[in-house]
Amino acid sequence: MTSLVIDIGNTLIKIAVFKLDEILEVSQYETIDMPVLDALLNKYHPVKAIISSVKKNTEAWQAGLGQKIPLTHFNTLMTSGINNHYLTPETLGPDRLAAVIGAYHIFPGQNSLVITGGTAITYDGIDAAGNYFGGSISPGLNMRYKALNNYTAGLPLIEPDAGFDTPYGNNTTTAIRSGVQNGVKYELTGFIESYKTGEGQLNIILSGGDSIFFDTLLKNSIFARYIKIEPYLVLKGLNAAIQKHND
Amino acid sequence: MTSLVIDIGNTLIKIAVFKLDEILEVSQYETIDMPVLDALLNKYHPVKAIISSVKKNTEAWQAGLGQKIPLTHFNTLMTSGINNHYLTPETLGPDRLAAVIGAYHIFPGQNSLVITGGTAITYDGIDAAGNYFGGSISPGLNMRYKALNNYTAGLPLIEPDAGFDTPYGNNTTTAIRSGVQNGVKYELTGFIESYKTGEGQLNIILSGGDSIFFDTLLKNSIFARYIKIEPYLVLKGLNAAIQKHND
Repeated sequence: MTSLVIDIGNTLIKIAVFKLDEILEVSQYETIDMPVLDALLNKYHPVKAIISSVKKNTEAWQAGLGQKIPLTHFNTLMTSGINNHYLTPETLGPDRLAAVIGAYHIFPGQNSLVITGGTAITYDGIDAAGNYFGGSISPGLNMRYKALNNYTAGLPLIEPDAGFDTPYGNNTTTAIRSGVQNGVKYELTGFIESYKTGEGQLNIILSGGDSIFFDTLLKNSIFARYIKIEPYLVLKGLNAAIQKHND
Repeated sequence: MTSLVIDIGNTLIKIAVFKLDEILEVSQYETIDMPVLDALLNKYHPVKAIISSVKKNTEAWQAGLGQKIPLTHFNTLMTSGINNHYLTPETLGPDRLAAVIGAYHIFPGQNSLVITGGTAITYDGIDAAGNYFGGSISPGLNMRYKALNNYTAGLPLIEPDAGFDTPYGNNTTTAIRSGVQNGVKYELTGFIESYKTGEGQLNIILSGGDSIFFDTLLKNSIFARYIKIEPYLVLKGLNAAIQKHND
């Protein structure tokens, strides 16, 4: 079974074609139109499609796509093989839920913690029985640098540096870099430890644009061997959701 | 010896009168003028004064005060009993250096880590021999809440809640609160651990407007018994600096 998966984020639209669990093609766009989708339909002949969006679904191409292929709009009331105990699923970000569904689809019957590093950092755990209870949202790596610059009178805007690896700084640039990057490292480690208290192994799944950076921050931690980088976790979760939804 | 200590921050001016190391009076203002200072001069008869400022010292009352009492302008090239190894002392915030001087004055010959919770969080360690090598600057508690609201499309502005104490949230408010407050807690703990590697006890000195909040976050940590709250650490450091400066 081949499926078309579309993830509309705040700034980018990601599109993947899956054959069962295998990604045949993945690409991203700032905007898309029907010819882009027609090319994929003609090349891969997917039999169904799913769209997840953090925005209202009003673009013309969505109606057009729905006329050509069975189209499901992902929403956070779809359980897709997990037990969602979030108190207000209607306010849960669809990306967060799709990532958790993806994690449990990739590692069924195992404990996993999904850490997504983007504009914000999100932490969402799912236990071996498939229970999702909730998570945490903190400022992303770049957001911390921007905030220190914007909300103070005197601090400059500093760029992230994956090569920085000292416990403190001895000038303004390195002091800020130490505060932000060691701060994120200690936060990552703290959340991982808080989820490591249960029985069994904990998969630590890094996703989002900062996943490689976070992997570098954690490279010397005791958790390093449990870390998996899954850049397409949300897409994989949406693909799992549509597989389960139409069964 | 009685001294007048003035700390000009971004939004508030703090004034203290010390008799040796004892605070006789402390108050804070949005602006001050010469009559405010005359009242303190007439009441306590201080023999010298020190001003630290994060801004240019252009107010008329500063010239007026200098005509009535020997006045020292604190700057970050003053060593004041510690060994400052910061690479660019001219760019070091005077509050950060004053706090470190204050810590070593209160705990001479001991390792201390100064954590100031305000607009930003600063971490500055001084070792038992009085060496200051540098520190770290990360976004403050309220800055993190503001940034998550301002830099995302969908997240609301959440207030801090010292009573929150769970490892994750199950709705938007508690997920953000968990991310920010557990994030700060894990960051505090991580920095403390990174300074705890040396010989001897480490004093953990909390200062700034969020010091009580941070103490609550750390109340169950293994470091709780080494925590001291010093709301007037910068003023105490400036008082130590002027005592040493004029000796």
